[in-house]
Amino acid sequence: MNVKAYAATGPQAPLAPYQLDRRSCGPKDVELEILYCGVCHSDIHTARDEWGGTMYPVVPGHEIVGKVTQVGAEVSRFQVGQTVGVGCFVDSCGHCHNCAQDNEQYCENGHSQTYNSLLQDKKTITYGGYSTHIVVTEKFVLSVSDKLPLEKVAPLLCAGITTYSPLRHWNVKAGDKLAVVGLGGLGHMAVKIASSMGAEVTVLSRSKSKEKDAQELGAHHFEITTDKENMKRLANRFDFIIDTVSAEHDYNEYLALLNTNGVMVLLGVPPKPSDVHAFQLIGGRRSLVGSLVGGIKETQEMLDYCAEHNITSDVEMINIDQINEAYERTLAGDVHYRFVIDMKSLK
Amino acid sequence: MNVKAYAATGPQAPLAPYQLDRRSCGPKDVELEILYCGVCHSDIHTARDEWGGTMYPVVPGHEIVGKVTQVGAEVSRFQVGQTVGVGCFVDSCGHCHNCAQDNEQYCENGHSQTYNSLLQDKKTITYGGYSTHIVVTEKFVLSVSDKLPLEKVAPLLCAGITTYSPLRHWNVKAGDKLAVVGLGGLGHMAVKIASSMGAEVTVLSRSKSKEKDAQELGAHHFEITTDKENMKRLANRFDFIIDTVSAEHDYNEYLALLNTNGVMVLLGVPPKPSDVHAFQLIGGRRSLVGSLVGGIKETQEMLDYCAEHNITSDVEMINIDQINEAYERTLAGDVHYRFVIDMKSLK
Repeated sequence: MNVKAYAATGPQAPLAPYQLDRRSCGPKDVELEILYCGVCHSDIHTARDEWGGTMYPVVPGHEIVGKVTQVGAEVSRFQVGQTVGVGCFVDSCGHCHNCAQDNEQYCENGHSQTYNSLLQDKKTITYGGYSTHIVVTEKFVLSVSDKLPLEKVAPLLCAGITTYSPLRHWNVKAGDKLAVVGLGGLGHMAVKIASSMGAEVTVLSRSKSKEKDAQELGAHHFEITTDKENMKRLANRFDFIIDTVSAEHDYNEYLALLNTNGVMVLLGVPPKPSDVHAFQLIGGRRSLVGSLVGGIKETQEMLDYCAEHNITSDVEMINIDQINEAYERTLAGDVHYRFVIDMKSLK
Repeated sequence: MNVKAYAATGPQAPLAPYQLDRRSCGPKDVELEILYCGVCHSDIHTARDEWGGTMYPVVPGHEIVGKVTQVGAEVSRFQVGQTVGVGCFVDSCGHCHNCAQDNEQYCENGHSQTYNSLLQDKKTITYGGYSTHIVVTEKFVLSVSDKLPLEKVAPLLCAGITTYSPLRHWNVKAGDKLAVVGLGGLGHMAVKIASSMGAEVTVLSRSKSKEKDAQELGAHHFEITTDKENMKRLANRFDFIIDTVSAEHDYNEYLALLNTNGVMVLLGVPPKPSDVHAFQLIGGRRSLVGSLVGGIKETQEMLDYCAEHNITSDVEMINIDQINEAYERTLAGDVHYRFVIDMKSLK
């Protein structure tokens, strides 16, 4: 099936219209018409080959919501017309230790990411959600409630699950004191989800400018990190810190804010490593951990949780021909808090 | 009570005989004659003021085993003649959140360390186990079984609990694949205790020279870390890594050896921080954590566990007048695996 898409053809090339050949819908496949696709920072890194390994032309996009247009003969969970989502992965080996435990994000044989990756045949390149349609094996298709505005649901497929998964894995619960570092696409979801779980949420920020936003998102406190006296006052304050920052920063400053047994979760990958002083960990049995997206089962759980708790992303809608401008504004932090492409604009 | 001791009077001064005035035995106190005292790396750091804050003269020593010589009127758990131990702490506030949870090692109001520290009056300086007697409040005195050779039990009071506590806290169990980095005082206890818990233990070392020792201590495997191809082969191998090294080293090399959800526990404090690449944590939901000694309740549990499982430290006995030489040999890594002072030599 030949479909319209937007692709980058090289690291310096702006994204531009592209004709994509999608596979036809196999017996286990679900074909969907894409309604909305969120714009994730990873899209930009990949389009510009900033992590290396980009296979051009690349069609980014892994925050996909759409309607089922066709299902294969063996598909049992979906029907034509149903609202569905696709996130960061479209397949995995299915039999390794991690896949067996519903942790496809850590598939030992290499999962198939939604774009710029290979299917499990280790030959076929994947193309993402900046296109009108996508065909995905049933197991990696999520059920999406029609209760919430769908354009605001799209970013849950990456930003939502990436923050929900560590909150669940490390068992954040009512009354826990939790700080969020970096109020962007991930950070604003962390604030919403953590506060919905009953945590007492503090946004840590370098500038006062985000204070009003933080409160509106559900944060209980707002603290400035550039004031050294303030940081001293916050020592041993938090049970959890969700660090969403991808820019260089000093982990030790934040580790010092953790209480005994506190956990700091890294979600962003800065370009350079950060120093860690062993004593910051030893002195309070603290943990510095990382977490990558979430498995498919947990992604469904997150979507259901968000539908139940009325949680969506704050989005700015764009047409597909605004994507290059949206990339620049994302890099400048000038978005509240996720760009979402209205895929009608591609038709 | 005036007792004989060995003290350092300045950062460059060798340890030398010193007369120490111990408090008399109060109603809640236990007075003990010290039989054996282990020599911990911390003793050297403190004697030489390498961590700053040493109050001279300093009497080191926090791996103490002895016999009760006197008990206060309110003491119920101990009698004269009983074998007891004293570890790294001799008091704590007793009422903070961490003390209430038997984690005196993380006392929020500052615990009283066995030497070079202040009692809870925040005035009286503490003096450690390089002396003939010590007086300690009952709660911080441990019961020691006479089943095991007491000189080999002494190092359990620091090296034993420092390795036992994280193994319990992070729930190391039979079948877990665990690596030990650094085969010294802490490392050799980690090998013994982890293998007694049923873990499959690998010693990671920079040289072949420790292979035979590692096997004799109970390690199942021995791997060389300076061989890059070997390190690649070991990627994702371990559920736990116990890192006892206090010298500068690259955490990332070891983090890469952790399986999904793997935990690397830092027990040593290198002089300089180490870089951490976020992706090493994120890519496998790995944890880099620290742990400090253990609480009093857990120390008793460890002593009972070691008595039951016949676990002791490998020691080299010295007389007190050999202490300065023992320091040099400890720094050179020339000890298998802990020096213990026979305190008869001080009488």
